[in-house]
Amino acid sequence: MEKDATTDEKAKLADLQKKLAVYQQNIKKNKIPVIIILEGWGASGKGSVISGIIKELDPRGFKVYTTGEANEEEKKFPLLRRFWTKIPLYGNISIFDRSWYRDVSISAVEDGLSEKEVNHRLRDISVMEKMLTDDGYLIIKIFLNITKKEQKKRFTELEQNKSTEWRVTANDWRHHRMFDAYKSAFQNMIKNTDTGSAPWLVIDANNSHSTIYKTVSELCKILKNKLDELQRGAEAETSEENKAKELVARTGDDIKKNPILPLCEIDLSPAAENNLYKERLKKLQRRLFELHNEIYLRRRPLIIVFEGWDAAGKGGAIKRLVGGLDPRGYEVIPISAPNNEERGRHYLWRFWSSLPKNGHIAIFDRSWYGRVMVERIEGFCSEQQWKRAFEEINYFERELHDRGTIQVKFWIHISPDEQLKRFNERLAKPEKNWKITEEDWRNREKWPQYETAVNDMLKYTNTAYAPWIIIPGNDKKYARLSVLENVISQLENEL
Amino acid sequence: MEKDATTDEKAKLADLQKKLAVYQQNIKKNKIPVIIILEGWGASGKGSVISGIIKELDPRGFKVYTTGEANEEEKKFPLLRRFWTKIPLYGNISIFDRSWYRDVSISAVEDGLSEKEVNHRLRDISVMEKMLTDDGYLIIKIFLNITKKEQKKRFTELEQNKSTEWRVTANDWRHHRMFDAYKSAFQNMIKNTDTGSAPWLVIDANNSHSTIYKTVSELCKILKNKLDELQRGAEAETSEENKAKELVARTGDDIKKNPILPLCEIDLSPAAENNLYKERLKKLQRRLFELHNEIYLRRRPLIIVFEGWDAAGKGGAIKRLVGGLDPRGYEVIPISAPNNEERGRHYLWRFWSSLPKNGHIAIFDRSWYGRVMVERIEGFCSEQQWKRAFEEINYFERELHDRGTIQVKFWIHISPDEQLKRFNERLAKPEKNWKITEEDWRNREKWPQYETAVNDMLKYTNTAYAPWIIIPGNDKKYARLSVLENVISQLENEL
Repeated sequence: MEKDATTDEKAKLADLQKKLAVYQQNIKKNKIPVIIILEGWGASGKGSVISGIIKELDPRGFKVYTTGEANEEEKKFPLLRRFWTKIPLYGNISIFDRSWYRDVSISAVEDGLSEKEVNHRLRDISVMEKMLTDDGYLIIKIFLNITKKEQKKRFTELEQNKSTEWRVTANDWRHHRMFDAYKSAFQNMIKNTDTGSAPWLVIDANNSHSTIYKTVSELCKILKNKLDELQRGAEAETSEENKAKELVARTGDDIKKNPILPLCEIDLSPAAENNLYKERLKKLQRRLFELHNEIYLRRRPLIIVFEGWDAAGKGGAIKRLVGGLDPRGYEVIPISAPNNEERGRHYLWRFWSSLPKNGHIAIFDRSWYGRVMVERIEGFCSEQQWKRAFEEINYFERELHDRGTIQVKFWIHISPDEQLKRFNERLAKPEKNWKITEEDWRNREKWPQYETAVNDMLKYTNTAYAPWIIIPGNDKKYARLSVLENVISQLENEL
Repeated sequence: MEKDATTDEKAKLADLQKKLAVYQQNIKKNKIPVIIILEGWGASGKGSVISGIIKELDPRGFKVYTTGEANEEEKKFPLLRRFWTKIPLYGNISIFDRSWYRDVSISAVEDGLSEKEVNHRLRDISVMEKMLTDDGYLIIKIFLNITKKEQKKRFTELEQNKSTEWRVTANDWRHHRMFDAYKSAFQNMIKNTDTGSAPWLVIDANNSHSTIYKTVSELCKILKNKLDELQRGAEAETSEENKAKELVARTGDDIKKNPILPLCEIDLSPAAENNLYKERLKKLQRRLFELHNEIYLRRRPLIIVFEGWDAAGKGGAIKRLVGGLDPRGYEVIPISAPNNEERGRHYLWRFWSSLPKNGHIAIFDRSWYGRVMVERIEGFCSEQQWKRAFEEINYFERELHDRGTIQVKFWIHISPDEQLKRFNERLAKPEKNWKITEEDWRNREKWPQYETAVNDMLKYTNTAYAPWIIIPGNDKKYARLSVLENVISQLENEL
């Protein structure tokens, strides 16, 4: 519990808290998503500060998350997944008591991470924050700073109170003795992540009740600025353009030097030898079954992305791909139009939430590439947004790669004539009826726009760590075998 | 991999699988939620059977879940939570490779559970299945049965194949040696949970490829029956009425003997002594702070439910309740109209998903009691549904109680005049504007209907394990102190 403040100070704080509640309503109205991070020393008062922040807030609009060491389950995924899954809806607030910064400060000291690993994590964090701020997220990063002497005093006080003594552990005292090592880890973290779009706010927290006042007061200022900025809409536009450029400049090198062929140059004539198909299919499925076991044993996650024209045969190819696999080790994730929960957040949120665990396979039937295809063509996102997406996706896939994920991306290609033939076939079969909708016919009319978008996608996201494979799909059997062959050869390379 | 079937058998299976896909589409159209459980011996072929089931299904309509021992995180919640959170949307299918039955069969033997504990779990399972089937869920429970000899043969074969040898662990062989103990656990489980609405299907799985055929064939029959039944709508109605009666008969005894006062007899005159309020509030908050630590140390979850008239002061009472608490140890969960994900499942789903962890506090600002208030009055559920809900809620709360959860339920009561006064005040203050909507005015007109519903609720869900507390709320300060006092005294009783 904090020390008593004077009546005057209390009244001033109460006013600020009410102001914050009004800002919260305006934030909601304007659909601004806000992330507030509380970092700082042990016993620096993060809990009391959070209490102070939420005091007058509408509980329907915020959520508090406490970050400890990653648990058993969280460790089966890339590091940042547990944070990506907790980003707020547009208009809401997520408050983090410790955050992704725990993994580059406390963990750096605790687990004795190499400088290289720490820098790697810092880079991933910068990328994540950039993606979020580019998308309109307001990230407010607060560090509560106290002296070693003050920390000692607080630990001692907590220990002397019967109901709080359990809060001070041997670990806390150990950390206290290592104050200097932590100090340099914290300094390094702040220095490397104090960016223009997500700056740090270091608050002197040696006096506990003025800390709350100072923090709430800073929050009010930041929110007010953001709301004022919104009114000067034009200005925000220009700065967004700059942001997009900045990101492109940083990932151009990842794209493979040998350019991928544009769709018009793909040879669609290859066909399977009918009489050998079954045998060959079975053989490939057996081999993949073996490799599936290998993946599991080595705890490598595998992502297979299927993109392609409507009726290109994605479903059929997936069916053969998994035909010999144990269904407990893979998941087919069909991606359709986002629901409200998904639409209300950064577009990558739902993909972070459905990543495969170590040793498991996630097969995406359509994917994050919707951003640069359907969302681009239908105008569900702005030009700047889909242009930025190429680089964002490259970053996303690079991060997965760096954390051990094997990625195989397919574009299943067919000709417009072949598509028409298949649409008509589908209409005729009751068990395939669900596969054809009005929308498919509408999309078909936009073939040229899609072709341009697909060529861009293939060109700008064809990286060494996640290259595209174009599968000629006019002959279904050929496509199915080819998918299996490509997955197998990529796994054999990686394992 | 399964043994080779003849071409004829393969063709027959392929036909059945296509049929299943058509049923799936009809199930979707009719919004029938389906749960398929696969239980059985180690190496009885659960994986292959699941592969066989999903072969032709639309992947957008089903999900496969594998159930192992509860993990670290899952153990912090009541046993059935991890299954409740995975029930399908209406029209979708959840397939469980092992399920809640793992906890009364394998776990019973592994962890040497007492007969009492096993029976307790069996009862909870029956209740869960009853709630789900009453709500229209189709639960299909399949047990794959093989002989001890066949199991030995399969383990040996798996071990001889280089890519599958790792699948057979020392544990599997240990289980094999304990075949008889498991047999009796499985028999006991089946005997006790083979109910009319969710019967078991024991399938002879000694011949692996006919097992898939038999299972898919049975599934087709069951789904066809269900779909046919739907067409005979009238009949279903009567059987639903019977189900409701059955459930009432089983929980009437839980309701407290001393009936709770109806709202019209509540004395609304109590008021706090203004000059002592602050001091008293502070003292109570300090005491609750101590007890919060106690709860955490003893790993007891605490649920506090706030119900009451619009503008009764729930928000203000909650604010004072948590005023002295560490925000990392509690969560305020505001319950408003369900979103699509929530509306598309059993109404208790969203509450199972938001239960507090052991040692944590969940404060519900409105709750599952919406079922017997707003949903009843606005006709969002049928009469049978809300009548059944009293008992379902009693069961739900009993289960939480049995698993250590402390529950405090408040009805904050005010007079219609007081409400009107507060509505007008809210309109005047910008920071409280969000608290008042058109809907509040509409609800106000239905005061008499709500009063009847509330009296029923207080009467039928006032159990020994989760009693109601009515708080006179015309004086806000009195209500706030009273809430704190009641929480404290209940905690002091329980700890």
